[in-house]
Amino acid sequence: MQDTELFADQLGNIENLVSLTVGQYTMGSLILMVSYGAHFAFVLYFLMTSLQLAPRYRIVPIMSAIVMVSAGLSLLREFNAWEQSYEFVEGMYQPLAENSTFTNAYRYGNWTITVPILLTQLPLAFGLLRPELHVRAARMCIPALLMIWTGLVGQFGETGNYLRLNVWGVISTIFFVWLIIEVRGVISRAIAMGPAELAAWPKNIWWFFLAFWGLYPIAYALPQLGHTGDIVVIRQLLYSIADVFSKLVYGIILSRYVLRRSALEGY
Amino acid sequence: MQDTELFADQLGNIENLVSLTVGQYTMGSLILMVSYGAHFAFVLYFLMTSLQLAPRYRIVPIMSAIVMVSAGLSLLREFNAWEQSYEFVEGMYQPLAENSTFTNAYRYGNWTITVPILLTQLPLAFGLLRPELHVRAARMCIPALLMIWTGLVGQFGETGNYLRLNVWGVISTIFFVWLIIEVRGVISRAIAMGPAELAAWPKNIWWFFLAFWGLYPIAYALPQLGHTGDIVVIRQLLYSIADVFSKLVYGIILSRYVLRRSALEGY
Amino acid sequence: MQDTELFADQLGNIENLVSLTVGQYTMGSLILMVSYGAHFAFVLYFLMTSLQLAPRYRIVPIMSAIVMVSAGLSLLREFNAWEQSYEFVEGMYQPLAENSTFTNAYRYGNWTITVPILLTQLPLAFGLLRPELHVRAARMCIPALLMIWTGLVGQFGETGNYLRLNVWGVISTIFFVWLIIEVRGVISRAIAMGPAELAAWPKNIWWFFLAFWGLYPIAYALPQLGHTGDIVVIRQLLYSIADVFSKLVYGIILSRYVLRRSALEGY
Amino acid sequence: MQDTELFADQLGNIENLVSLTVGQYTMGSLILMVSYGAHFAFVLYFLMTSLQLAPRYRIVPIMSAIVMVSAGLSLLREFNAWEQSYEFVEGMYQPLAENSTFTNAYRYGNWTITVPILLTQLPLAFGLLRPELHVRAARMCIPALLMIWTGLVGQFGETGNYLRLNVWGVISTIFFVWLIIEVRGVISRAIAMGPAELAAWPKNIWWFFLAFWGLYPIAYALPQLGHTGDIVVIRQLLYSIADVFSKLVYGIILSRYVLRRSALEGY
Amino acid sequence: MQDTELFADQLGNIENLVSLTVGQYTMGSLILMVSYGAHFAFVLYFLMTSLQLAPRYRIVPIMSAIVMVSAGLSLLREFNAWEQSYEFVEGMYQPLAENSTFTNAYRYGNWTITVPILLTQLPLAFGLLRPELHVRAARMCIPALLMIWTGLVGQFGETGNYLRLNVWGVISTIFFVWLIIEVRGVISRAIAMGPAELAAWPKNIWWFFLAFWGLYPIAYALPQLGHTGDIVVIRQLLYSIADVFSKLVYGIILSRYVLRRSALEGY
Ligand SMILES: CC1=C(/C=C/C(C)=C/C=C/C(C)=C/C=O)C(C)(C)CCC1
Ligand SMILES: CC1=C(/C=C/C(C)=C/C=C/C(C)=C/C=O)C(C)(C)CCC1
Ligand SMILES: CC1=C(/C=C/C(C)=C/C=C/C(C)=C/C=O)C(C)(C)CCC1
Ligand SMILES: CC1=C(/C=C/C(C)=C/C=C/C(C)=C/C=O)C(C)(C)CCC1
Ligand SMILES: CC1=C(/C=C/C(C)=C/C=C/C(C)=C/C=O)C(C)(C)CCC1
Ligand code: NA
Ligand code: NA
Ligand code: NA
Ligand code: NA
Ligand code: NA
Ligand code: NA
Ligand code: NA
Ligand code: NA
Ligand code: NA
Ligand code: NA
Repeated sequence: MQDTELFADQLGNIENLVSLTVGQYTMGSLILMVSYGAHFAFVLYFLMTSLQLAPRYRIVPIMSAIVMVSAGLSLLREFNAWEQSYEFVEGMYQPLAENSTFTNAYRYGNWTITVPILLTQLPLAFGLLRPELHVRAARMCIPALLMIWTGLVGQFGETGNYLRLNVWGVISTIFFVWLIIEVRGVISRAIAMGPAELAAWPKNIWWFFLAFWGLYPIAYALPQLGHTGDIVVIRQLLYSIADVFSKLVYGIILSRYVLRRSALEGY
Repeated sequence: MQDTELFADQLGNIENLVSLTVGQYTMGSLILMVSYGAHFAFVLYFLMTSLQLAPRYRIVPIMSAIVMVSAGLSLLREFNAWEQSYEFVEGMYQPLAENSTFTNAYRYGNWTITVPILLTQLPLAFGLLRPELHVRAARMCIPALLMIWTGLVGQFGETGNYLRLNVWGVISTIFFVWLIIEVRGVISRAIAMGPAELAAWPKNIWWFFLAFWGLYPIAYALPQLGHTGDIVVIRQLLYSIADVFSKLVYGIILSRYVLRRSALEGY
Repeated sequence: MQDTELFADQLGNIENLVSLTVGQYTMGSLILMVSYGAHFAFVLYFLMTSLQLAPRYRIVPIMSAIVMVSAGLSLLREFNAWEQSYEFVEGMYQPLAENSTFTNAYRYGNWTITVPILLTQLPLAFGLLRPELHVRAARMCIPALLMIWTGLVGQFGETGNYLRLNVWGVISTIFFVWLIIEVRGVISRAIAMGPAELAAWPKNIWWFFLAFWGLYPIAYALPQLGHTGDIVVIRQLLYSIADVFSKLVYGIILSRYVLRRSALEGY
Repeated sequence: MQDTELFADQLGNIENLVSLTVGQYTMGSLILMVSYGAHFAFVLYFLMTSLQLAPRYRIVPIMSAIVMVSAGLSLLREFNAWEQSYEFVEGMYQPLAENSTFTNAYRYGNWTITVPILLTQLPLAFGLLRPELHVRAARMCIPALLMIWTGLVGQFGETGNYLRLNVWGVISTIFFVWLIIEVRGVISRAIAMGPAELAAWPKNIWWFFLAFWGLYPIAYALPQLGHTGDIVVIRQLLYSIADVFSKLVYGIILSRYVLRRSALEGY
Repeated sequence: MQDTELFADQLGNIENLVSLTVGQYTMGSLILMVSYGAHFAFVLYFLMTSLQLAPRYRIVPIMSAIVMVSAGLSLLREFNAWEQSYEFVEGMYQPLAENSTFTNAYRYGNWTITVPILLTQLPLAFGLLRPELHVRAARMCIPALLMIWTGLVGQFGETGNYLRLNVWGVISTIFFVWLIIEVRGVISRAIAMGPAELAAWPKNIWWFFLAFWGLYPIAYALPQLGHTGDIVVIRQLLYSIADVFSKLVYGIILSRYVLRRSALEGY
């Protein structure tokens, strides 16, 4: 165990400051395993679904399959970092094992690829056409990437530099608000343009989007409630719930929606 | 070897308290290897079968393929934990090797994904239609997830806190009974709605379901018979028999059933 | 290096008692690598072949693909155990390295999945129909599994308990004889039912089956000729020849046979 | 930590001379993870797209899928080298850990496979026919390989032998200029031969090509600005931006172009 | 570092006797990485190509896909042995690290699977029919396997027993000559039977075959020029060039040839 007080604020994430009981370590391991396991498993669902769609809509589940692989690999890397950086010594799991530190930053890196894809899936699934499709996608992706990267800068502050954590957190949230406005724009167009029978879908997706994307900033801010084993485990649980719903369940919803539209359009 | 008496009750699973002979360790390794090997191998069977079905039924073997990947990854993680946490010292395999603990909790995490899929496959395969399909699926998944999560909380008690083990075990079993009632409801509808030629299938699946899902609570309670190497190996064998039949063989049965229904419906 | 005399008879396989020259260790490594490499590589052959067959016969190469994945993972595990349990010290490869023991038991575990599949492929490929197909398959699989599991119990005796090795070996061989009688039954039916142009195939498969399944009991009994490095390497070679022919070449033969039958039946 | 002054100039890349803060090490890890994650994930996109194209154009996305796998494996190897060769000691990540050195040379090795494929995709996508196709491809690949291999020789000089770095760098740049002239030739033919509706595409690809292929020489020369942690991280970021755009985004652009041409040609 | 003089001649390959500079070790690593990377990446090319061929010729690219997986796994094993058996100590990469030895023998093991496939591809691609196809294939595979296995015995002598190296080398070369005669027979038949438009192909393949299969004996004999780091790296480069051309490029040539024949035969 290394003397962390000297450079606590440089350790990036609170996982590096906190010892865990066997139960807490085990819960963290199984939460991360279930995350990467579910993402890899559902690649098959999205690939097979895309084979059953009208050519025009096949790209939607394919994009979900891409998100599943990218997020799966990112979460597998989180699991390896979790397993490597904790070791069971004198009855507790101690951090900074094997001369390594844990980080949640892989998630922010992965979002740089997956978030633009998830956002672009929306106008694609709801049938917006070029060039509006490209314009709307860009108007969402720009604030989204700014949100993620400002958040990445800020999250390094959670181990003690709360000024850094909150200043960048607020900036990121401003971009999040800008993103939400843009997403609302797409949803409104979807409601206007979509077939009447499926009018409820865009409305439901809107609340679904707000609910689960909103979990990420909560996970970002959580360490301010205390640097304890429970906070560490709860945050990994929050991340995993957000990941499974904002990527996997979101993908299933959009896939079922375009399956219905394919049928309606006689495929 | 670490002094375990101090924190025995915190070690989660009895594997961390028990030394194994070479034979016992070898049997545990091969049981876990056969489990993940079989699950990964049968992904191919389910994917190829789905290509031979009427579009309406293709989702059934695809769901089995998803369960195979998710359970395979969970069982591979169990194998790694088994291999890492035991080391051969002075003629015996000693636990808590490489500063790590073994856990069966990955299984409970995996069930959170696979059990809802396995339950939803039933009404889907037996041709129940929306919205009854969604209602029935939800009425099964809610007690199932409560059963699993209460069991997860309880299983940490097996190393010495039998009050925790049995109190949560009973609560979980209550949810299991509730689940069984719901499954019986689906089976009855299946018998009523299904084609006459295939009437025996739902009846047989019912007994199959009770027999193999019932193995899991036995494995859960087994450590109360003693913390010995044989109990550890027998439990892993029980888990693996339950896994292979409740997921893999179950998937083959449902696939063959929908293959017959596709044929009956002229595909 | 641990003092093995004390518990030699408990070490399961002779690999744990024998030091190897660099040449012997290298031959063992390459034999195991070629085994898992060939099994994984031929998955592609069997999947692509199944796409070219009449629907009725597609299950035959798919079953071979399943055997390839399951046996490949089992043989990869054998390779890891070989590499981990031997280390190069003072000019020789010494066993029991990294506090681990080697075992061939993964093979017996894998046979529990692959042997029933290989046996069921026979009546399926030669066109036996339900319900005779199911009856014949069961009448072969029961003695086969008894053969494998009694052999698994016995093989732990090879390091010094030859009574255990030979008693269980004889019991297992009795089951093997019972199995051979059942297989002969299927072959006779195949000869009777099959198209005249392909009459030679069942006859040839019979001798092929006896020749290569017969290698496994030889490998089982080999340690009684001496606990030397050469015996260890020769046995791994025997196992690999048996694996490649009894699974991979066997699968190619059956695939080519059903390809011909598909053609004959106008596909 | 080893005494590096003695053989600094032999250590190949500056990563072996530079200690990193936790933040810098974390950024490097996530940049490399995002790179290999994105490359592996988009294999699915290119495979599924190839199924939707006129037979004549299917080879274009297949070539991108090949580049994705090859570059993905190369970048995964870079990640392993990064993780293995840095260890967290006394608050900083120190290089030369686990008796190993880091290298960027895997990238140059990978370019030997991917660059010829990326260049050949250009005339293929823009419909040039045999034998002009083969001639043009060869006239691009020859300078490209010379550029890469001279660069590989030179890049070993970055840790202190700037003469070696810059002499070989200039030679490589000369080949780069020759390559650019050849690429310009193909672009001009593409503009001349391509359908009018898609005339803008070859023009845009030209600037896209110059912009992102031009990042690599900048990354090559960067260490001359100083051997610091920031330079190390910025260079890995530059490499990754170059990789994602010059391979992944480039592949998407060409795929969408041939999708349009397939449609125009009535597929 | 172990005292190797005592048992130098038993160490199998010169890699175990030679220390490498960082540059030499890095070149060896990247050469092996590019080899397995290219082999795995081109599996996709061969699978997708087989989908575009007349059923009669699909087996040709499928056989190449099998060779890619088998050789890829063999070369990945070579990379792991290279990385494990060298460690960076006092400015140089020293052999026999982590109590392990390096070996090229995995290659000879892999050839036992891939060489018969590569040889059988020839008559298959050039349209020879049963039973001549089987006879010709056997007449090539027998000398080929004898060539490989005698070479495997001999190559252990390269570290000091040049009598063993050269005696077995000559025997192996005799079998190589016998093989070349058989291959020439197949080429002549191919020229005689093949369509006139494609008459040049068999002739070109003949010189291609001699050129790249001829590299392997050069690599085999190279250590007699000296046990130095450069010889080690040059040999790995020779092996990789031979592998990429004799398997990967060879497969592309045959695939393009059968693509043309499919077209000529109206597919
Ligand atoms: C508002 C806000 C944030 C929002 C993050 C979001 C909304 C992430 C969504 C991620 C998804 C959907 C990933 C799927 O792979 C941060 C960056 C945590 C920083 C603090 C403020
Ligand atoms: C009743 C009961 C249990 C039942 C578990 C079951 C029925 C698990 C089924 C799992 C399956 C089918 C997994 C497939 O992936 C627990 C939780 C052990 C806790 C003790 C009481
Ligand atoms: C008779 C006999 C045996 C026979 C084993 C056989 C026949 C194994 C076949 C395995 C196959 C075909 C595996 C493919 O995956 C044992 C168990 C060694 C024990 C000693 C007596
Ligand atoms: C000019 C120049 C270089 C150019 C490299 C380039 C242009 C690489 C492109 C790589 C790609 C596109 C890879 C995709 O996998 C080097 C070699 C760095 C050496 C210094 C001079
Ligand atoms: C003549 C000769 C040899 C020839 C080897 C050859 C020709 C190998 C070809 C390998 C291929 C094509 C592998 C593809 O996976 C040996 C055995 C080195 C031993 C020395 C004499
Ligand atoms: Na650990
Ligand atoms: Na994530
Ligand atoms: Na261990
Ligand atoms: Na499980
Ligand atoms: Na070892
Ligand atoms: Na086996
Ligand atoms: Na490290
Ligand atoms: Na690269
Ligand atoms: Na090493
Ligand atoms: Na090779």
